[in-house]
Amino acid sequence: MTDYMMPFTRMVHLSDGTIPDAPLIQTRRLSDLSGCFADSDAENALSAANPIIYEVYEATQNPEVVGHLRYSTTVIRPGKVGDEYHMTRGHYHALGDRCELYYGLMGEGYLLLQTPEGEINAQRLTPGAMAYTPPYWGHRSVNTGKDNLVLLAVYPADAGYDYRTIADQGFAALVVERDGKPEIVPNPRFVKAGLQPE
Amino acid sequence: MTDYMMPFTRMVHLSDGTIPDAPLIQTRRLSDLSGCFADSDAENALSAANPIIYEVYEATQNPEVVGHLRYSTTVIRPGKVGDEYHMTRGHYHALGDRCELYYGLMGEGYLLLQTPEGEINAQRLTPGAMAYTPPYWGHRSVNTGKDNLVLLAVYPADAGYDYRTIADQGFAALVVERDGKPEIVPNPRFVKAGLQPE
Repeated sequence: MTDYMMPFTRMVHLSDGTIPDAPLIQTRRLSDLSGCFADSDAENALSAANPIIYEVYEATQNPEVVGHLRYSTTVIRPGKVGDEYHMTRGHYHALGDRCELYYGLMGEGYLLLQTPEGEINAQRLTPGAMAYTPPYWGHRSVNTGKDNLVLLAVYPADAGYDYRTIADQGFAALVVERDGKPEIVPNPRFVKAGLQPE
Repeated sequence: MTDYMMPFTRMVHLSDGTIPDAPLIQTRRLSDLSGCFADSDAENALSAANPIIYEVYEATQNPEVVGHLRYSTTVIRPGKVGDEYHMTRGHYHALGDRCELYYGLMGEGYLLLQTPEGEINAQRLTPGAMAYTPPYWGHRSVNTGKDNLVLLAVYPADAGYDYRTIADQGFAALVVERDGKPEIVPNPRFVKAGLQPE
């Protein structure tokens, strides 16, 4: 009977999304998102302060095999780089056909998704919203509110991360502030997979 | 590009755990749990009223294949049958090596787990508790509080259900009220897999 993995519980502080017993906490500062934001001048102006953009609390280190799940919370701090809202780096899954579930706990924003061909989709994230990332969609989360955006993410433990595609390609759309409100606009610097920019 | 499954969002009412756009809502009354509770006389006395024990709101009908997730909320009403607290039927997964994540949203209770050999484990469910059911553990949820116990469940979409094993075998432990408090006690009627009761 000792071969069975033992059940366990992680507490998520519902007041702020933190996981006290998280085996891994990742802090992503502006320098970790180098090149992600469209406005390079605004990014450079903030480089000395190098603010925290978001934190990820990994709830588990469950085995990376079919049948297991991993789950984490993401706390994205409010703010902008130029007129572009704070966001996560974004990723595809190393196993492209693995999905990911995002559950809004606090704050407001968007789950921004794109296909490898550059088709864009956006799902509004508010408390109680469960947004589903189907297989093959790259995705990032964007905080358009004045408070922290807190999300719970659940994904197959064998999904893996592909950050490089989005680092190379960017997203086909940006979430920016226009007249005090969030707007999703085309990214003029977007590079379609397999194409070179002019 | 039309071959990609489209992203979508389901709202979970954080006030009560209901999912208004759920494609499937299952209502489980006492008669649906026939034989689950230990006290047959108490069960018979309630049979005319046939109270609702719990409801399940399926958030999605995502494809039952590797890489997808399904998720649902369970709302277990407070109450007892004899001295045994309201609970779900309980299940193993048809694919035994698939896990399941339970996230406590409201109320209090236990995730009760057992191996096929009858080893018991219990994880306390409170708001913010994320209890992990590793592969091969049968599991049921028990409401030991005075209000609804509301849980979010997330599981690999290909996990499937095996209700029969628990219907035949029962759980090796019961969660009962003793001196006004919940207590986990051995189930005298438990049948170890492959064994006959005396």
